[in-house]
Amino acid sequence: MVLVSKLKSKRKRSQTVNWSYCLPLAVIICVFWVYSAIAQGTPAPATPPLTPEAVQSELNVALDTMWVVIAAFLVFFMNAGFALVESGFCRRKNAVNILAKNLIVFAIATVAYWAIGFGFMFGDGNDFIGLAGFFLSGDDNSPALLKDYKGVFSALNWTSVPLEAKFLFQLVFAGTAATIISGAVAERIKFLAFLIFSFLLVGIAYAVTGHWIWGGGWAAKMGFYDFAGSTVVHSVGGWGALVGAAILGPRLGRYSAEGRVNAIPGHNMGLATLGCLILWLGWFGFNPGSTMDANGKLIAHIALTTNMAAATGGIAATAVAWLYLGKPDLSMIINGILAGLVGVTAPCAFVSVASAGIIGLIAGTVVVFAVGFFDKIKIDDPVGATSVHLVCGVWGTLALGLFSEADKFGAAPFPKPGLFFNGGFEQLWYQFVGAIAVGGFTVVFSLIAWYLIAAITGGIRVPREEELKGLDIGEHGMEAYSGFAKETLDMEI
Amino acid sequence: MVLVSKLKSKRKRSQTVNWSYCLPLAVIICVFWVYSAIAQGTPAPATPPLTPEAVQSELNVALDTMWVVIAAFLVFFMNAGFALVESGFCRRKNAVNILAKNLIVFAIATVAYWAIGFGFMFGDGNDFIGLAGFFLSGDDNSPALLKDYKGVFSALNWTSVPLEAKFLFQLVFAGTAATIISGAVAERIKFLAFLIFSFLLVGIAYAVTGHWIWGGGWAAKMGFYDFAGSTVVHSVGGWGALVGAAILGPRLGRYSAEGRVNAIPGHNMGLATLGCLILWLGWFGFNPGSTMDANGKLIAHIALTTNMAAATGGIAATAVAWLYLGKPDLSMIINGILAGLVGVTAPCAFVSVASAGIIGLIAGTVVVFAVGFFDKIKIDDPVGATSVHLVCGVWGTLALGLFSEADKFGAAPFPKPGLFFNGGFEQLWYQFVGAIAVGGFTVVFSLIAWYLIAAITGGIRVPREEELKGLDIGEHGMEAYSGFAKETLDMEI
Amino acid sequence: MVLVSKLKSKRKRSQTVNWSYCLPLAVIICVFWVYSAIAQGTPAPATPPLTPEAVQSELNVALDTMWVVIAAFLVFFMNAGFALVESGFCRRKNAVNILAKNLIVFAIATVAYWAIGFGFMFGDGNDFIGLAGFFLSGDDNSPALLKDYKGVFSALNWTSVPLEAKFLFQLVFAGTAATIISGAVAERIKFLAFLIFSFLLVGIAYAVTGHWIWGGGWAAKMGFYDFAGSTVVHSVGGWGALVGAAILGPRLGRYSAEGRVNAIPGHNMGLATLGCLILWLGWFGFNPGSTMDANGKLIAHIALTTNMAAATGGIAATAVAWLYLGKPDLSMIINGILAGLVGVTAPCAFVSVASAGIIGLIAGTVVVFAVGFFDKIKIDDPVGATSVHLVCGVWGTLALGLFSEADKFGAAPFPKPGLFFNGGFEQLWYQFVGAIAVGGFTVVFSLIAWYLIAAITGGIRVPREEELKGLDIGEHGMEAYSGFAKETLDMEI
Repeated sequence: MVLVSKLKSKRKRSQTVNWSYCLPLAVIICVFWVYSAIAQGTPAPATPPLTPEAVQSELNVALDTMWVVIAAFLVFFMNAGFALVESGFCRRKNAVNILAKNLIVFAIATVAYWAIGFGFMFGDGNDFIGLAGFFLSGDDNSPALLKDYKGVFSALNWTSVPLEAKFLFQLVFAGTAATIISGAVAERIKFLAFLIFSFLLVGIAYAVTGHWIWGGGWAAKMGFYDFAGSTVVHSVGGWGALVGAAILGPRLGRYSAEGRVNAIPGHNMGLATLGCLILWLGWFGFNPGSTMDANGKLIAHIALTTNMAAATGGIAATAVAWLYLGKPDLSMIINGILAGLVGVTAPCAFVSVASAGIIGLIAGTVVVFAVGFFDKIKIDDPVGATSVHLVCGVWGTLALGLFSEADKFGAAPFPKPGLFFNGGFEQLWYQFVGAIAVGGFTVVFSLIAWYLIAAITGGIRVPREEELKGLDIGEHGMEAYSGFAKETLDMEI
Repeated sequence: MVLVSKLKSKRKRSQTVNWSYCLPLAVIICVFWVYSAIAQGTPAPATPPLTPEAVQSELNVALDTMWVVIAAFLVFFMNAGFALVESGFCRRKNAVNILAKNLIVFAIATVAYWAIGFGFMFGDGNDFIGLAGFFLSGDDNSPALLKDYKGVFSALNWTSVPLEAKFLFQLVFAGTAATIISGAVAERIKFLAFLIFSFLLVGIAYAVTGHWIWGGGWAAKMGFYDFAGSTVVHSVGGWGALVGAAILGPRLGRYSAEGRVNAIPGHNMGLATLGCLILWLGWFGFNPGSTMDANGKLIAHIALTTNMAAATGGIAATAVAWLYLGKPDLSMIINGILAGLVGVTAPCAFVSVASAGIIGLIAGTVVVFAVGFFDKIKIDDPVGATSVHLVCGVWGTLALGLFSEADKFGAAPFPKPGLFFNGGFEQLWYQFVGAIAVGGFTVVFSLIAWYLIAAITGGIRVPREEELKGLDIGEHGMEAYSGFAKETLDMEI
Repeated sequence: MVLVSKLKSKRKRSQTVNWSYCLPLAVIICVFWVYSAIAQGTPAPATPPLTPEAVQSELNVALDTMWVVIAAFLVFFMNAGFALVESGFCRRKNAVNILAKNLIVFAIATVAYWAIGFGFMFGDGNDFIGLAGFFLSGDDNSPALLKDYKGVFSALNWTSVPLEAKFLFQLVFAGTAATIISGAVAERIKFLAFLIFSFLLVGIAYAVTGHWIWGGGWAAKMGFYDFAGSTVVHSVGGWGALVGAAILGPRLGRYSAEGRVNAIPGHNMGLATLGCLILWLGWFGFNPGSTMDANGKLIAHIALTTNMAAATGGIAATAVAWLYLGKPDLSMIINGILAGLVGVTAPCAFVSVASAGIIGLIAGTVVVFAVGFFDKIKIDDPVGATSVHLVCGVWGTLALGLFSEADKFGAAPFPKPGLFFNGGFEQLWYQFVGAIAVGGFTVVFSLIAWYLIAAITGGIRVPREEELKGLDIGEHGMEAYSGFAKETLDMEI
């Protein structure tokens, strides 16, 4: 017990870090340091007299917060789902690269969204962009609601959770957008180029278009609705993916001189299938969690519409692949399920379970043909991210304008009824305008960003020899599966 | 900002779907469509005056619903666990097939249980079958409780959550029963035959026997108890698996002419182990979630009994395999853990932690010998599903009659005390009758269903050449592990 | 319905167990049996009159319990994360062994912690050890709080959840400590030796040092703080790992005679990456769950500090590996993320998000050099567990003394402000003393335990031939990847 006695003199620092090694990180540290002084929380208010209203209010905050953070954890786990689906669908020789991209991208998204993205998206500003709340600073008296709210994140004053819970939930969504791109540009993009693009997308492009819709910008004012992000998250990721895949060009050997498409099979369908199930699980946080409110009835409804669309998307893709491609290809089943999930994301709170089933059926059908379509125009997307997230993200956004039943299921605020529910074309038109505008902005932004990165880093595509040998060795100096003999192929692709 | 101006004329539809492709799905769509008009929710009631009772009631509903949906998400994730355990235990050449089966089966279960299963199981009807509430329609004023409840799902009027939360929770259970069968019939069944059987099992057989026990049918009235489904879910899946494996016959080369059992090792123990841990995690939703009520004390107790039985099941199987088979085989450890979990599922709310430990010890011991037993009678179950889910499902059902301590741990309603707690044979007898009756019905139903499917689809077993080459190529036209050289075996099995 | 009629005579027992097989388990069963009679719950108290206070209190218990059990489930799932990271980082030929160790170790931890560990750690006793509450027995009127609490687990009277929820949460933490060791001693330790050590560590060493800190012992009284276990869990596991790895000696071929370090690459980076993401997910239960209280504001804050440290840890390790090792090695990214998480575990509730970012940056930097350091002193830790859990566990413990802002974020009780926040060296000194004392005890205990086990079991290291051939065949009689051809290496390592 001698150890306990307090030696006042001769204190030892146990730092094992050799600080000279830390130079390259010093800049980043400084950035953090500057902000460590910024107040990040206000002291808890004095307890009000214990009326039923006070109990209700206090417990509602606790309950809502618990729901929001648990949903955020589920959405966070989607990073694992994307990592597995994307690496499973690619070749063994590029597996480490894809895994590394999908692992580090959420770290980068965390820093980017904390530093600038959240401020651009939800900070008070104008109809086009938020201009406050960078580094999660600025006034905020959350969980005060609506008119009681005083702070710089007015667009999020409708949910009675602490600011940091709001940020956490939005952060995991932002991370998703970047992971979508990873798959489409896989097997040929430089690691560094991808990291820079991810930072820019999450910190700027995603945040700006997100501000239009969820941050109280022009699209929200127009009447555009996207409950959980078919447009905000998935089509944004999808547009970025499309531009990236188009600029990079197809993988070596993908399209023969005669225009034939060479199948390049994925290397690990076990991981891909697990990834699909993890994504399905994560969507139970993505969609029902977007209530940001422990509204049991609405949460249960959204969980059902989400699940139904996944199911019918999977069934449709299975059937269509069987009928038109000859056999029920597992990668099509996976993409069909994801297509249904992406499709129902925008309308999940405003449509019936049966309508969700139809939305999923159509998404699962469309995705099979979309995969063929992109190959026809020679845009090589190794995992089908564009077909799933862009095409079905747009479909889901429009589907809200077709199947919406307004506030029938308890969501508030809510869109107008859709075309099939006696609402005419009005809501559909808003959806169309929003989807196009977000697409236009993201495409232009992505083009500029990719070319800028190419100019700075000397090209975004790895050299030919590296691509043939695999990016795992070229970019990371290691292999994914040591100890397993490689299959000898006549033509190495 | 020009885009925002509302063009009232010349609206464009952005549908990218070529509708002519959709013909094969038209029938399904029609079914959905008919039901989309059915009212699925009643408007929220006016807020009552804010008494402590009102606050308590409102927050209880919110809290209960959150618990039920989160537990449902965990149980949903068990689909991933089953997919990994079953594919990991099978051969590389059949991995895609098993993964595809386990992925699509929950989609099929969703449609089957929504359309008919939930109505047969929980709809009001007679002692044998429910006859209302198909397509989740019909009156229902959930979360009203007990005598206040007005609707067609009276058997679920004891839990204060919205109808859609009740459905979601029951749906993920129904899905589990079908996935159990997948493993036992693996490596030789036709993909389509399995899909049809799954639809019938979830939509009809599972629902009917479930009605007897959880739907207020004759077994419930007799006094049979099964808290979370040792019988309702696991033994039903297990009986279906047994019948399927018996009808299909063993895999080629499994049993030599001289009666020797040839070991056919699984191809990926990493996936299988992960699957086991995912299932263990999922069981924390399966058993504690079956409270369908945020009863903290009971939830914590059930979580402990569940975990203890898993632990002792794993330890017992390790020890028994070590002593009797010579080495602690990993697949036995996995099956021992699952055996303990299946065994404690029926009694988890009514037994002490120590009793749960004994139930798990016995389950983990029994499962090792059961695997040997089924091989002796030449029923070839590649993953041991019958030993785990059927044998230990029956054991757990009976164990309730041995170890029950009635309402000691806060469960309500509750069974009589078991044989070892001064209850005599009464509860044990009810358990025995229920287990036998469910088994008898499921066996007869499965026999009829499998033979009917065989008649319609021209046999449920793939051709010999396809089985030798692997079902992945034969049924799905792809391989699970592209880029990995195959091991050359003297005798290809 | 004939089955329903109660046959009063001729009851059949359906026991399928041949009891003669059970002899080896009889001792364990007896132990359980003795304790099955011990009362484990007190009847629920009568409902108080419904005041707002009563509603608040009742719902708080329900809400807190739900939070604690869900967090516990997430932490439980970390077993899967450790299993995948550790097996993925090791060689194919030892995969089954590592998976089996990580699977069964939680089962062993369950029994050890239930029987003795929880009592030693949280039972009332003296400043050094708890001496009550073995087998989860003894008086306890949880969820009564503070002065209202009557029972033998006084150290846990600050959280309003039932006793069994307290135990569950602490159990999953205890399990973590043992899994950490598994990786460091991998590829050469006997299966049985590891199992025995795990039992001793969880049941005794972890519990004793845990009692000092979380059980109200001398370190707690001194003023040492460790919010979620950088010291209690991670450094304890890390010290045990260090001693184990040192005693075992390096793997064959790891260090050449000339002092060169031979890289021994891991066999499955897909599993390792998934494992890292599962651990990251699990840490959202580990750290925020350690509130053991549905305090939304604090939970959200901790989730953010945790996530930020993981992100900056990953970024730092990526950058440092890139700059100093030449390429961004995926295993370094994984270890950097884990390093950040371990580092923020102690201070997560007391530091700002920016400080958490700096703690993670330093952890992610340190871990890269620590891996090199241990190789320099020829301690062969195949997965880097010592660098991650020991080095960064100590770093995180000290970081609390640097960055603490006391109660600014709502934690209670709370440490003094740290060195960088005008607190001087006081808190840092407490942290230093605590870290050293825990390390000293664990090292001495581990030395004794390993040598004792070696004496009993005839050495803790497998024979040379078995190590060369792989522990999967030697210890378990099976291979992890049947059907995959092995890579032929010039030198078999």
